[in-house]
Amino acid sequence: MSDPKNIKRRGMMLVLSSPSGAGKTTISRKLLERDDNLKMSISATTRAPRPGEVDGEDYIFMSDEKFADMVNKNEFLEYATVFDNSYGTPFGPVEAALKMGKDVLFDVDRQGTQQLHGRAGDDLVRVFILPPSKDELECRLRWRDQDSEEVIITRMAQASDEMGHYDEYDYIVVNVDREDSVDDVHTILKAERMKKTRRDGLYDFVRGLCK
Amino acid sequence: MSDPKNIKRRGMMLVLSSPSGAGKTTISRKLLERDDNLKMSISATTRAPRPGEVDGEDYIFMSDEKFADMVNKNEFLEYATVFDNSYGTPFGPVEAALKMGKDVLFDVDRQGTQQLHGRAGDDLVRVFILPPSKDELECRLRWRDQDSEEVIITRMAQASDEMGHYDEYDYIVVNVDREDSVDDVHTILKAERMKKTRRDGLYDFVRGLCK
Repeated sequence: MSDPKNIKRRGMMLVLSSPSGAGKTTISRKLLERDDNLKMSISATTRAPRPGEVDGEDYIFMSDEKFADMVNKNEFLEYATVFDNSYGTPFGPVEAALKMGKDVLFDVDRQGTQQLHGRAGDDLVRVFILPPSKDELECRLRWRDQDSEEVIITRMAQASDEMGHYDEYDYIVVNVDREDSVDDVHTILKAERMKKTRRDGLYDFVRGLCK
Repeated sequence: MSDPKNIKRRGMMLVLSSPSGAGKTTISRKLLERDDNLKMSISATTRAPRPGEVDGEDYIFMSDEKFADMVNKNEFLEYATVFDNSYGTPFGPVEAALKMGKDVLFDVDRQGTQQLHGRAGDDLVRVFILPPSKDELECRLRWRDQDSEEVIITRMAQASDEMGHYDEYDYIVVNVDREDSVDDVHTILKAERMKKTRRDGLYDFVRGLCK
């Protein structure tokens, strides 16, 4: 018999956002290591592959024409153009994963999150990661880059701007300790999996209990 | 300095429901032991205290007149009359606990949950506990009581009826293993605490990060 806890369910789309320096990248990596049912979304891009990058793993590399065609056909969950290069999340592979009950992690910015929210509705869970204090954020920014004072000041201003939009997210994690924060995001993921609305096998399961 | 993870928040009201025999009582007790910030709600009742019951601990014992007066003043979050006795949850102590950031656990039936939902809105988190299989439910009902076949059949029918309303809850926990189920409900509780909407100290916290 199959595991009764494992009721058929639709996967979710998980977005982690944070101002740069607040720890998002590390938390994402550790979360993926820890949870077999969570997969990183792979973006399409029109930029050229860098040495070592593998098509279909790091990015789906495509021409400007192909990208424009997919935009026209509404085949991106979200997309953006940064300088001369376009980046986007193709709808097809994400939908296939969700249907199989896999959860998909996204590395997108605020605008990307807003686009996802518009298309995905309740499939989307948005987590915002905050630094524990202003000093700590500044310290992490300085430690990460050997940049000029001017660059640091600009980054701090950007971070402030991003943090001001915490209200557009569902959950807030304060990143005091990295391992604790991985636990926190994992806790959110595990709780969301138990939500009635995701578990579309419940009707059949309860019917089996009642007949 | 205070713990930055401990952003001021409003408590939540947690309802655990299950058909009898599915394990609710044990899970509630273990959850209360494990989590210091969760308190059991104390009901008011018009029935006489039983030997050993302490007023204000087991129940708030009150006269029919006092109870009726509180009903008229809309001072119960939910109430019901069972045979000759009335039971209800006074609004005041629960609201005081929520304001202090304490979470409150309720032991109420389906009708009680519906009444709470009407008054509490997003303060309320509803968890339904299902048995892993029909055989397991029947086994637990038989083990618990040395009752006649007729009584068991009636209980199974009641359980089926209750389980048919799983759709009125937010989260579903399948109780395969008791300790796992305590973990599951605790996971839900911890995730809900990180919800942006409960953390009313966030605005000030983020302002402190940005200034």
